[in-house]
Amino acid sequence: MTKRIAAFGEVMMRLQVPGYELLSQASTLNYSFSGTGVNVTSALARFGHKGLLVSTLPANAVGDAAVSYLQKLGITKSFINRDGKYIGMYFLENGFGARSSRVTYSNRLESSFNSAPEGSYDFQDIAPKIDVVHFCGITLAMNDSVRAQMKAFAKAVKGNGGTVVFDCNYRPSLWGEDGYKAAKPHYEEMLGLADIVMMNEKDAMYVLGMKTGKEKRHEQLIELIPAVAKKYSISVIAGTHRSINSDNTHSLRGFIYKNQEFTFSKLLSFSVYDRIGAGDAYTSGIIHSEMKGFTPAKAVGFAAAAGMLAHTIVGDTPMSSESEILRAMTELVGDVER
Amino acid sequence: MTKRIAAFGEVMMRLQVPGYELLSQASTLNYSFSGTGVNVTSALARFGHKGLLVSTLPANAVGDAAVSYLQKLGITKSFINRDGKYIGMYFLENGFGARSSRVTYSNRLESSFNSAPEGSYDFQDIAPKIDVVHFCGITLAMNDSVRAQMKAFAKAVKGNGGTVVFDCNYRPSLWGEDGYKAAKPHYEEMLGLADIVMMNEKDAMYVLGMKTGKEKRHEQLIELIPAVAKKYSISVIAGTHRSINSDNTHSLRGFIYKNQEFTFSKLLSFSVYDRIGAGDAYTSGIIHSEMKGFTPAKAVGFAAAAGMLAHTIVGDTPMSSESEILRAMTELVGDVER
Amino acid sequence: MTKRIAAFGEVMMRLQVPGYELLSQASTLNYSFSGTGVNVTSALARFGHKGLLVSTLPANAVGDAAVSYLQKLGITKSFINRDGKYIGMYFLENGFGARSSRVTYSNRLESSFNSAPEGSYDFQDIAPKIDVVHFCGITLAMNDSVRAQMKAFAKAVKGNGGTVVFDCNYRPSLWGEDGYKAAKPHYEEMLGLADIVMMNEKDAMYVLGMKTGKEKRHEQLIELIPAVAKKYSISVIAGTHRSINSDNTHSLRGFIYKNQEFTFSKLLSFSVYDRIGAGDAYTSGIIHSEMKGFTPAKAVGFAAAAGMLAHTIVGDTPMSSESEILRAMTELVGDVER
Amino acid sequence: MTKRIAAFGEVMMRLQVPGYELLSQASTLNYSFSGTGVNVTSALARFGHKGLLVSTLPANAVGDAAVSYLQKLGITKSFINRDGKYIGMYFLENGFGARSSRVTYSNRLESSFNSAPEGSYDFQDIAPKIDVVHFCGITLAMNDSVRAQMKAFAKAVKGNGGTVVFDCNYRPSLWGEDGYKAAKPHYEEMLGLADIVMMNEKDAMYVLGMKTGKEKRHEQLIELIPAVAKKYSISVIAGTHRSINSDNTHSLRGFIYKNQEFTFSKLLSFSVYDRIGAGDAYTSGIIHSEMKGFTPAKAVGFAAAAGMLAHTIVGDTPMSSESEILRAMTELVGDVER
Amino acid sequence: MTKRIAAFGEVMMRLQVPGYELLSQASTLNYSFSGTGVNVTSALARFGHKGLLVSTLPANAVGDAAVSYLQKLGITKSFINRDGKYIGMYFLENGFGARSSRVTYSNRLESSFNSAPEGSYDFQDIAPKIDVVHFCGITLAMNDSVRAQMKAFAKAVKGNGGTVVFDCNYRPSLWGEDGYKAAKPHYEEMLGLADIVMMNEKDAMYVLGMKTGKEKRHEQLIELIPAVAKKYSISVIAGTHRSINSDNTHSLRGFIYKNQEFTFSKLLSFSVYDRIGAGDAYTSGIIHSEMKGFTPAKAVGFAAAAGMLAHTIVGDTPMSSESEILRAMTELVGDVER
Amino acid sequence: MTKRIAAFGEVMMRLQVPGYELLSQASTLNYSFSGTGVNVTSALARFGHKGLLVSTLPANAVGDAAVSYLQKLGITKSFINRDGKYIGMYFLENGFGARSSRVTYSNRLESSFNSAPEGSYDFQDIAPKIDVVHFCGITLAMNDSVRAQMKAFAKAVKGNGGTVVFDCNYRPSLWGEDGYKAAKPHYEEMLGLADIVMMNEKDAMYVLGMKTGKEKRHEQLIELIPAVAKKYSISVIAGTHRSINSDNTHSLRGFIYKNQEFTFSKLLSFSVYDRIGAGDAYTSGIIHSEMKGFTPAKAVGFAAAAGMLAHTIVGDTPMSSESEILRAMTELVGDVER
Repeated sequence: MTKRIAAFGEVMMRLQVPGYELLSQASTLNYSFSGTGVNVTSALARFGHKGLLVSTLPANAVGDAAVSYLQKLGITKSFINRDGKYIGMYFLENGFGARSSRVTYSNRLESSFNSAPEGSYDFQDIAPKIDVVHFCGITLAMNDSVRAQMKAFAKAVKGNGGTVVFDCNYRPSLWGEDGYKAAKPHYEEMLGLADIVMMNEKDAMYVLGMKTGKEKRHEQLIELIPAVAKKYSISVIAGTHRSINSDNTHSLRGFIYKNQEFTFSKLLSFSVYDRIGAGDAYTSGIIHSEMKGFTPAKAVGFAAAAGMLAHTIVGDTPMSSESEILRAMTELVGDVER
Repeated sequence: MTKRIAAFGEVMMRLQVPGYELLSQASTLNYSFSGTGVNVTSALARFGHKGLLVSTLPANAVGDAAVSYLQKLGITKSFINRDGKYIGMYFLENGFGARSSRVTYSNRLESSFNSAPEGSYDFQDIAPKIDVVHFCGITLAMNDSVRAQMKAFAKAVKGNGGTVVFDCNYRPSLWGEDGYKAAKPHYEEMLGLADIVMMNEKDAMYVLGMKTGKEKRHEQLIELIPAVAKKYSISVIAGTHRSINSDNTHSLRGFIYKNQEFTFSKLLSFSVYDRIGAGDAYTSGIIHSEMKGFTPAKAVGFAAAAGMLAHTIVGDTPMSSESEILRAMTELVGDVER
Repeated sequence: MTKRIAAFGEVMMRLQVPGYELLSQASTLNYSFSGTGVNVTSALARFGHKGLLVSTLPANAVGDAAVSYLQKLGITKSFINRDGKYIGMYFLENGFGARSSRVTYSNRLESSFNSAPEGSYDFQDIAPKIDVVHFCGITLAMNDSVRAQMKAFAKAVKGNGGTVVFDCNYRPSLWGEDGYKAAKPHYEEMLGLADIVMMNEKDAMYVLGMKTGKEKRHEQLIELIPAVAKKYSISVIAGTHRSINSDNTHSLRGFIYKNQEFTFSKLLSFSVYDRIGAGDAYTSGIIHSEMKGFTPAKAVGFAAAAGMLAHTIVGDTPMSSESEILRAMTELVGDVER
Repeated sequence: MTKRIAAFGEVMMRLQVPGYELLSQASTLNYSFSGTGVNVTSALARFGHKGLLVSTLPANAVGDAAVSYLQKLGITKSFINRDGKYIGMYFLENGFGARSSRVTYSNRLESSFNSAPEGSYDFQDIAPKIDVVHFCGITLAMNDSVRAQMKAFAKAVKGNGGTVVFDCNYRPSLWGEDGYKAAKPHYEEMLGLADIVMMNEKDAMYVLGMKTGKEKRHEQLIELIPAVAKKYSISVIAGTHRSINSDNTHSLRGFIYKNQEFTFSKLLSFSVYDRIGAGDAYTSGIIHSEMKGFTPAKAVGFAAAAGMLAHTIVGDTPMSSESEILRAMTELVGDVER
Repeated sequence: MTKRIAAFGEVMMRLQVPGYELLSQASTLNYSFSGTGVNVTSALARFGHKGLLVSTLPANAVGDAAVSYLQKLGITKSFINRDGKYIGMYFLENGFGARSSRVTYSNRLESSFNSAPEGSYDFQDIAPKIDVVHFCGITLAMNDSVRAQMKAFAKAVKGNGGTVVFDCNYRPSLWGEDGYKAAKPHYEEMLGLADIVMMNEKDAMYVLGMKTGKEKRHEQLIELIPAVAKKYSISVIAGTHRSINSDNTHSLRGFIYKNQEFTFSKLLSFSVYDRIGAGDAYTSGIIHSEMKGFTPAKAVGFAAAAGMLAHTIVGDTPMSSESEILRAMTELVGDVER
Repeated sequence: MTKRIAAFGEVMMRLQVPGYELLSQASTLNYSFSGTGVNVTSALARFGHKGLLVSTLPANAVGDAAVSYLQKLGITKSFINRDGKYIGMYFLENGFGARSSRVTYSNRLESSFNSAPEGSYDFQDIAPKIDVVHFCGITLAMNDSVRAQMKAFAKAVKGNGGTVVFDCNYRPSLWGEDGYKAAKPHYEEMLGLADIVMMNEKDAMYVLGMKTGKEKRHEQLIELIPAVAKKYSISVIAGTHRSINSDNTHSLRGFIYKNQEFTFSKLLSFSVYDRIGAGDAYTSGIIHSEMKGFTPAKAVGFAAAAGMLAHTIVGDTPMSSESEILRAMTELVGDVER
């Protein structure tokens, strides 16, 4: 069944150096537009839902380009305001082997989204028009005004019987020194409002300050996630454990905790072409699974395969269809499809 | 000794998305022209023979571009007709790791080649002007008219004492449901006319419907190929066994069956840059070896190395010289050549 | 006031050689998707209306790319079917000065749109959901099945009180020999159904076979257009006179005939970057003007300026906003805008 | 004689859409780094002087790329601080014919340069190490802190016997409403410190509020410039009158007022490839002429030719050598140089 | 009737900065292979003749690339030797408006062609296999060895009843100081061997040292060309007068002197995209006309139109077919061809 | 402490086929400028030293482009002469897997550097202005004149108390047959002048003709290097052992011999993006370490990490900063840096 799924978040311009040159070597950039909300709603639109973004873009040529790009991704623009003058940007230099990829941000705090005044969005009007809303810890890190909008929106959706998804996505560089302390109350408020939460044991330990005597990641997870679910009355908690292997491949295992039970995906190992945004593919897989009523086993398998495929595609935004993901869950890597 | 080697087949336009983007992400395409006959005659021209294509191309700007491209590859255009309006095309999106490459065909049945009326080619005139002719199962799958031309051409060459090469190359998608049944009589007719045949045990089992109690590929091959050679009076049968390894490398072992004896190449394992057309490199290696009188051991080694190198070069068409292939047969991967 | 404006027509893939190289010189192509219906509904979406395309695209990677592209242009895809296997394509080589641009078509008669069986579209369902529908003479030239769909759709919209727009757009190469004779009954039927018609005196003389003793284009226009409007009960007839000047600039004058009165735009002369699709910009300007109730003088000025700007933008599809067109109506060419 | 010539100003990143596409059509950008100070000191370095930039760039990959680019232009980086996090940016879409070029700025007020705290530069140390310093009205428009730095630097150079150049370069969009009023005191202070000033009659009338009864540009210039020179004790005032012709060519006439006398260049008319930064080429021509002791006639001719050539070269920054400019002063457009 | 037409000359690699950037701004180059002989034989191959190049290319990857490129142009490689190590190269920076194009040569005297030892070519074997041979003054300027080969080849063709074409093409930079004096004896020897000569009055005056009292180009031409024809017993002399107009267009008028009579083409004026090699298009037009027996009027018209079209096409080498040139002789610039 | 470090050597133009195409397939080249001296001084400039190149470049557009490029790399041009006409060039085709990269040189013996007459450089003036000078065996292979300049320069620096670095870098193709014999006296002379030498056991055995009974590389090294150091009174000898693994990764172990003691780095294994010039990164790491007084262990670790990172960056020239190399010495490959 098709749902109306919205996300609240910033649209950023990604300025990527082509190939493996450094910014000080090259002279051209590839550009696209992304953001956690963009990635999630676009992926869900590709799965057949209606994907809506609640955001603000500047009323100029850059904003026009962003809107065109979001439309190309299948996002419905009805709730996108056009106001302010700037857009957040980041530069991406692709790493190769021993040299890591490098991201350099431009100033995003003055972006149209992050400087939109209170009252910019009529959440009471929007809430009844959507079934699910997605929020992300990155947005929560921005400023008080955005945080207030985010919480108001979450409450409005909750009040209308909608589903609230919250992806913890804690970024140390955004919260600064003593960031965990500053972040905790806001995270707790969002967890209290959320039905589906994306996180793992690190968020519990560092952001929420929960204690455990265990030392292994898996054991920490098994101990802490149920406690989080109980404390904040969360229906579904899902997330991944990721690692980078010595041959530059990555490994990923997804989990879901639902009805007091953990389910894990197979451990997937794969070559990586573009790592950015792959976490959002996993999230969109979980949301889609919940909307379609997949079993937990199918849900983590689907989400993990969605995450794996997103690593093989250029750009932040997942591009795989439901059928491609289902096939990737069962098949080995194949020869040319023709 | 230099030979005049022709192929009968369609020229297709390859429209490839650059890099690893999808067709729905990119905005440019790289184009080239290829086809089994193009690949084989071009490779043989590079080995020093005269390579001639017998085909039809439209009399417009696209046909002009195709002719220019074939000339660049070293193919002699004397037997290329210019008629009709269209060319077959295919789009190629490069896979990465867990995501396979994807080919999407445009409508080729209306191409100049596939719609050329009977009598388009004067095979009685062409046959005495060539020493070898190459045919392919893809062409055999097209339509009755093309099949009739193909058989008439094979008979004319045979009648003139020339050598007929037939590459089975069965493509399920082209023959449709019950394809093996439909294909069998045509394959049998071509096998009856051929001196050199490219195939393996799968063709014997599925297309020719031959039975074997063996379960391993190698044992099936050993049992069935001699039976095929005998039944259709074929001098040389050659082919490969290919497999895709878990680290995305491919492995290839070539074989040749001649004078009632099998000879196998070493198992080659290698990274793959462009898989399409690599089989034609193997074929051209076998034909060249036969023309030059290589021993079976040298022939399979040469053909397998030609096939391996073709996987490292962009485009459908092999680009390696005889000396490069000979060197690849003996040397390890080296440092920069300078 | 915002309207729901649909067009019925084929989506074509445009494969353009970059810069000024010939197809036989270059090795890359830029691709985009267009078509008269695409151009018109996209332009109207940019003016604030809801633009809907009624068409069929293949259910493969090429069709996916087309849908993404149409979404980027702002077109709503609700009435786009996904069926069949092919898309019409054309190659474009840019001319320079004394060398004209050159278009080479691929086979479009087998496209998903042109081969969609009767009953593919539920026009009775669509008609009440739109205010305006646009048809074009190119579609009318395709085949009987498409023609039947087109007329059925026009009648359904008319029956629902909607507005029918018909752009004569007679292409000699599509109708073949004795084309005018073959085309006439179909054109008459469409003119009988249309409220707004795009044409000029040539269509009246050649397609409809009307006679005039006048020799100058302007006088022929003045005599014939009112006769057409009367005979087929057409509310609005609009069109342009175009000419190419010796310095490679083009000149354009638009006209509108409404309420028994002609109104002409200024003669605009301008440099041309991409001529293809500029006529559709004029059409979209007329439709928008009618929807907004512009005076005839403003309507032709707006449409002509829209047409002029479309000549300065790459691609078939107009990209200018209403405010940009309004400014171009009054301002001289300016310095950098910053 | 070679001089040490510094400029104080911001380095901006220019992000240009290639060809004539719009930002909402394209997917790549060409990037370079420029700014009035960059353009002037780079041009003077090309003429054989030592060009130094006094500025601040972020200590990250974008700042590294900017420094590399400035070095490529021949600028000495000794006085460039690395601090702060951001760089000002602007997007450029090339116009074509009737469609103007369009510049969209990113937020520059938070740039490393514009947010450098007082005391960032040790002007007392720098002043004795340079012969000439160049300032620009764009920098003057930024904020109080930058203005204070600018004036302190000018005074330090003046105090050390150096030459102060000030280019009025009033940009309405930077000063906002009532901008002339806000700007006037700052302009007056800079004019009082300057030896060489770039301006024309418009600056006198609008920024300085001077009155004239004349209506023609030329007469206004003749009346007002001497008054400005006298009032602020300026040795040399130079500038241009520019116009855009109906055939899209531009016309430019330079003037210099020195020793109570006006000298004018020929009226140059030329095709334009990249208009941005061409004014800085004129400025650098005047400064070079003064340093070399050219006659006023040679000075305006040289500066105007420098300006003309800068219109034919991509990028903001002049790239012509002294000998190329001298040749352009005397020669007609020639055939290929080989 | 189809002829076998050879040229003797160097193949050069053209390394062109894309767009209008300077070599010190850009980071990529487009490469192709050309030379007067390449241009002429390729154009004649496109007109249906067999075009053969007599030259030497290095036996390495650069030589391979050159051969591929020549084949793409339709040139038959039978008489191309593979020896030596280097190829002549030149860099091309495109001019714009007031800024001229600029060519920078790499060292060509050490090229495979210019350093091929005597006896490299078996002219006695080649001469009977061709009908026409083309030589050029650029080759004549190289060194004694090349000059000796050139003259020996001309004599061999003449001795076999073939036609000798000589294009004077005097390049001052190649002959150095006192070049006219050094060149004269060699030019006289070639003129004595030639049947068809490309030149105009300047060659007569400067290279051959002929005197005239006339001051206008046209009058000088009328006086001197018949004297040249007579003195050296030349059947056909043809050439052009070119000029560059103030609006950057070029004008061209062709002439032919044959049977004691001058015939002139219309004066053609046109925009220029790539000027290099356009003279060779004119030459190939004259040769083709002579081979086909065109009237002098048709010959100059055809050659001039060929020259004009060559200015609109990228690369040194003419790309127009006979039918395209014939159409350009009669038609105005047209709209898109579709 | 910052040093003034010069290198004496040729600047070459690198013309690289983009991606993995062959020169006979592609049509564009990426160009840059490099050379051992360029690579070493640029890397040292990036580490904070003043990097100076002593060389000669042609006084034309290619030389201008080279100078701009060197400036971009941070090299100071004070000691670069502009004379002569040519620059050495090489073409690079990237290998893939089983297909090696291929370098094809253009003629460099006629380059401005290699043909600069004696007396071109005032070494007595330069020597006191630098602390360190770097020479390379490639330059030593060129011709007598360059060799004489090199030795004179080394003596002048030595005479002024500066440090002389010599990188043996023996290239068999440059010395021709019996090359070792021809090279030995020149190598001995340079070793006698050098303080720091880059070499390994192969140079000792083949160039210097030293004998050893050992068979393993490591044992040969341990035996021969101390003998070399003693014989030629060399303070520091450093070098690497490299190998190519079966999975296409490379392995590298660095050594330094100083104060009669060997120190070895860890064995580093890594994927390779661009192998050319990586040896120069190791050299620059050793020089920097010596200038900064790093312990031998830190020196080899730093130099080896510098070499490893240079393999991951496009172009001949190392681009890593000191902090990036220090981090690579300690950290595992990481995730995206943001």
